[in-house]
Amino acid sequence: SSHLAVCGGTHGNELAGIYLVREMLKKRADGTEPVSVVTVMSNPRAAQLCVRYVETDLNRCFTRAALSAPVSETSPYEMIRSQELNALLGAQRSVDLLCDLHNTTANTGLCLITYSDRDWICLHICKHLKIHACIIYTPTHHSKTLFLSAMEIGPQPHGVVRSVIFSAMQEGVQLMMDWICQFNSGTLFEGGWVDVYTMVKNIDYPRDSETHMISAAVHPDLQDRDFCLLHPGDPMFLCFSGETLRYRGKEALYPFFINEGAYYEKGVALSLARKRRVQIPSVRSETLR
Amino acid sequence: SSHLAVCGGTHGNELAGIYLVREMLKKRADGTEPVSVVTVMSNPRAAQLCVRYVETDLNRCFTRAALSAPVSETSPYEMIRSQELNALLGAQRSVDLLCDLHNTTANTGLCLITYSDRDWICLHICKHLKIHACIIYTPTHHSKTLFLSAMEIGPQPHGVVRSVIFSAMQEGVQLMMDWICQFNSGTLFEGGWVDVYTMVKNIDYPRDSETHMISAAVHPDLQDRDFCLLHPGDPMFLCFSGETLRYRGKEALYPFFINEGAYYEKGVALSLARKRRVQIPSVRSETLR
Repeated sequence: SSHLAVCGGTHGNELAGIYLVREMLKKRADGTEPVSVVTVMSNPRAAQLCVRYVETDLNRCFTRAALSAPVSETSPYEMIRSQELNALLGAQRSVDLLCDLHNTTANTGLCLITYSDRDWICLHICKHLKIHACIIYTPTHHSKTLFLSAMEIGPQPHGVVRSVIFSAMQEGVQLMMDWICQFNSGTLFEGGWVDVYTMVKNIDYPRDSETHMISAAVHPDLQDRDFCLLHPGDPMFLCFSGETLRYRGKEALYPFFINEGAYYEKGVALSLARKRRVQIPSVRSETLR
Repeated sequence: SSHLAVCGGTHGNELAGIYLVREMLKKRADGTEPVSVVTVMSNPRAAQLCVRYVETDLNRCFTRAALSAPVSETSPYEMIRSQELNALLGAQRSVDLLCDLHNTTANTGLCLITYSDRDWICLHICKHLKIHACIIYTPTHHSKTLFLSAMEIGPQPHGVVRSVIFSAMQEGVQLMMDWICQFNSGTLFEGGWVDVYTMVKNIDYPRDSETHMISAAVHPDLQDRDFCLLHPGDPMFLCFSGETLRYRGKEALYPFFINEGAYYEKGVALSLARKRRVQIPSVRSETLR
């Protein structure tokens, strides 16, 4: 049967997942769970300090290259930690499905972020949770075992836990565990359709040509409108000087991660995606063995 | 005539004031301002790193004791910086009115925070901006020159700038400058009434008795309801385990700074205030000389 890992605190200031994992770790004592779940605090040092990361972004340390690089005591903490997690969840526990809990300042609601539109398990879970999937093709290959999906939820400021966000994440994780429990017991899950947003590109904030400082905020008409279609000519940024800048693309696309706080340093004001309805096949535990 | 200082970035991850000060510094080149304004980036190192502070909270370094303490190269950066600012704004420029720009994750709207309900200038500016004042009596005496008022606005995540918040702060600062300009030219400002919220106490998050970890989030019914009357028995926290905790005070009070991100480390989930309508006298420039 399939083993699930639930990880919180991959980013140490994303508190919904951190408090949810702490709560799950407390409850593990009674041992009555119907599903085999390993619960992990991914970056305990960053969580302790309530910062995204201590030395480098842990969520960028799960490439095959990073996981096989030689590390020493002087390596960045997160480089060492990613190899520890890979050993713990990949080699020792042979986890089949990993749910990495994240939250965002963007108004994304609840969604799963994954790396392939052929990941039927992940898309079936989206169907079960009545949420959509975001596909982000990354330039490097992620360790498949360790990064099946991220559960993303927003809006929530970093360093803050909002009760409704916590509860929605808690319910999402519970539904995911229910699905796996049913799957493991041989239930047939009928095929169907799932909305999938596939990332096309990132858009940076407008910047001063000399200082490279950000010179505009996301336009009020776009702020909080994640997954709402953005048409060519629609307002995109409002400069601090008062000028409106418009979306100059030729194709209407779906924005998401609009004004995510952690992406300022990465030069990303928002991402743009194409939406598709993906047909997923029926699955039953045996069919995948 | 009165001299104004506008300070942003006292907390380096409160971006509305940081971008507003940068914008004002750019515009200062034309020298056509009707009011003498000195614009200051209070904590440039923290702003550069997008953190609240580098070594210690600058906003707690303006006590008379801190401002007169001997400092050396090994002193915390913010201790040195507070004395630099005090010299710059207090001694050298003899600023009469200081507007320190802050933002909060709490849904406060725009308000002024000050330290006396007899500060007629500050309360007149509140009347002019059609906003209320919060009075926070601090245990230590602040340097009067340097801390006449903080302009606080929310909700906005730390490390994020939201266009509507930026614009509201920009308008607030402009109205404050207009008021001072009129005041300096001898305009009589009629007296009237201003809503004043005087802080009574802080409430911490519920915590696990052993680990001291936070065990509940602000209740959904209270979240974002800053300055809305909280009655005895009203829901206050929702535990991660599902239990609702209620406000057990005997007196209905007004909550503010509800679930402010930076106050987790200070053990403050919200503050409670009494509301009064304060009568302010008419003022004219000469009457205060």
